[in-house]
Amino acid sequence: MNMQNIVKLPERTLLGPGPSEINPRVLVALSQPAIGHLDPAFVSLMDEVKGLLRYAFQTSNRLTFPVSGPGSAGMETCFVNLIEPGDKVIVARNGVFGARMQEMASRIGAQVVTVDDEWGCAVDPNKIEAALRAHPDACAVAFVHAETSTGALSDAKTISEIAHRYGCLTIVDAVTSLAGSPLYVDDWGLDAVYSGAQKCLSCVAGISPVTIGDQALAKMKRRKSPARTWFHDLELIDGYWSEGGTRAYHHTAPVNSIFALTEALRLLKQEGLDRAWNRHQENSQQLVSGLQRLGLDMLVQDPAVRLPQLNAVRLPVDIDETAIRSRLLNEKNLEIGAGLGPLAGKVWRIGLMGYSSRPENVSFCLDALGSELGGAIQTAVGE
Amino acid sequence: MNMQNIVKLPERTLLGPGPSEINPRVLVALSQPAIGHLDPAFVSLMDEVKGLLRYAFQTSNRLTFPVSGPGSAGMETCFVNLIEPGDKVIVARNGVFGARMQEMASRIGAQVVTVDDEWGCAVDPNKIEAALRAHPDACAVAFVHAETSTGALSDAKTISEIAHRYGCLTIVDAVTSLAGSPLYVDDWGLDAVYSGAQKCLSCVAGISPVTIGDQALAKMKRRKSPARTWFHDLELIDGYWSEGGTRAYHHTAPVNSIFALTEALRLLKQEGLDRAWNRHQENSQQLVSGLQRLGLDMLVQDPAVRLPQLNAVRLPVDIDETAIRSRLLNEKNLEIGAGLGPLAGKVWRIGLMGYSSRPENVSFCLDALGSELGGAIQTAVGE
Repeated sequence: MNMQNIVKLPERTLLGPGPSEINPRVLVALSQPAIGHLDPAFVSLMDEVKGLLRYAFQTSNRLTFPVSGPGSAGMETCFVNLIEPGDKVIVARNGVFGARMQEMASRIGAQVVTVDDEWGCAVDPNKIEAALRAHPDACAVAFVHAETSTGALSDAKTISEIAHRYGCLTIVDAVTSLAGSPLYVDDWGLDAVYSGAQKCLSCVAGISPVTIGDQALAKMKRRKSPARTWFHDLELIDGYWSEGGTRAYHHTAPVNSIFALTEALRLLKQEGLDRAWNRHQENSQQLVSGLQRLGLDMLVQDPAVRLPQLNAVRLPVDIDETAIRSRLLNEKNLEIGAGLGPLAGKVWRIGLMGYSSRPENVSFCLDALGSELGGAIQTAVGE
Repeated sequence: MNMQNIVKLPERTLLGPGPSEINPRVLVALSQPAIGHLDPAFVSLMDEVKGLLRYAFQTSNRLTFPVSGPGSAGMETCFVNLIEPGDKVIVARNGVFGARMQEMASRIGAQVVTVDDEWGCAVDPNKIEAALRAHPDACAVAFVHAETSTGALSDAKTISEIAHRYGCLTIVDAVTSLAGSPLYVDDWGLDAVYSGAQKCLSCVAGISPVTIGDQALAKMKRRKSPARTWFHDLELIDGYWSEGGTRAYHHTAPVNSIFALTEALRLLKQEGLDRAWNRHQENSQQLVSGLQRLGLDMLVQDPAVRLPQLNAVRLPVDIDETAIRSRLLNEKNLEIGAGLGPLAGKVWRIGLMGYSSRPENVSFCLDALGSELGGAIQTAVGE
């Protein structure tokens, strides 16, 4: 094959909020020639993917599969199927993605009760309980396990226990936590959980692992009217994905992305969840120590709720953070993430997710930031 | 890299209703290491993709971009943004995908008026006009340009002219027509058009090119309430995709799929639309002649409305069509498509789409079917 002129891009070290770097083995799997979405060879891969996703989520939920779209499509799938117009939903907001949950639930026609915590803090379970006491007619509690916009980890187990005590289901955003932080869907009793493939799974962007428990399925079955979007209708999608089912055609599955996801999940299983979680923790500790040596503070004060895969660090005042990120990208091919919303210009988000979470990336990032910030401080002094 | 145990699949000749075979150059582009969805190098690729999609659609519509999901997500994007609850919509049904349009519009809360034509026939413009006369309060006409379930091509230009005469917008399914049959979005005045990447573009499944014209945009702007699904909200998505805009983050774009789409569209532009359309036509003519020599009839009687990229052929009675398709797949690695709905067991759908539309595939398919059907006839005689 003449390889000239084929789309060719810079090779980046990806230490932003995702996409993370993709393991070369996953790229090889991704680029296998396509096969049909009803081919028995593909159907057997679908079964393997479901099994591997159950391992990653630590669940035995039958309905565990990848949604054919990015994490937000997974989020929409959970909301549009579980929440009916008029339902009352408690939504915790401590960053961008809690706010997105609120927006989705509102558009569906739900009555949304928001519970706010400061950006950079975990969701406060006591506030959730207070909201549930004030709204005994609520049917669901939605929250983000690992807030990608701030780097804060919330206590999914405790929030879920409280929600169940008040007869509510839980809808949980595990986009950034899956494979990066401990997540036990069954042990913690999480009812509907969605994730993304381009974070700690280090797979391609554009597919969203989802798992739905029996209580959530039962609520779906009780719906008065079908889900408002055909594309996200779990009952129809289940007809295609369910083992031993009819494999009824719903939409054409993204076959190449599923090849990649299979490989990414095989690699995760090979490493083991415990080891993957530990690796994320160790590399993050190295990074945080280094950032502190550079005189920088972490946004999330309490180390116990600090995400190892998404390290939000406060910026020194009076630096041109955009210029620094541009230089890192253009001169060193290093991507780190900017702050979002109220944190824009105030933090950087340094991701150490999946395959990107490697000691050499930590060293590279610290060296690069050290040169830049040394320079920035000198400039400030010289002025 | 140790290539052992990496996901490995059979190599198929894909002559079904899609996915089609992917050009090896596109697979190389697909498997480039990921870069960030806000990386300037990716942003410049986004601009290139939009330009190339405008060429493929023959439009100058500003809002022309790939939806991050399969063709059905593109369909949902058009309906959920353009149609409001209570809107009256005329939907033409002459196969599976018209029925899907009806279902989506109904779930949105639209009043749907269906206009039926037999499966295997084109949409009858006279019936559309009669429906518009009977329903002067309709605001949109939705129809499928190239019905993948039957192989019938409808006259998009005439239907669009009629719809406009009655003050209606058009929503057009071009999933199978884009790059395979003449399609002139601007000249024909089509208002909202969606397609798929895994048909005549021969790219990966899971992204859906969409183009939205000014009149459709104006209807969107007049909405009383925002689109009911956040994920499909075109106003938000436009904030990320629009040239010179803020590139406001909405969701993480499927970067690797976009690499592939760029390459697939470059290849299309290199070949030229006219030549691509002719190639599809010529290969289909060879296939149809061969099928007729085997004594088979095409489902679509009128050659003028027969799709070259999707050839639905009637089956001889008394053959075990499932067994034959299995043998073709298992013994010859050849995939052809089954009939859907009322056509199950009555037709095969032989796709010659994009990179799959090559003379050697036509010969291979005819030889394989010849052996199988010769055998089937012998068996029938012997019984």
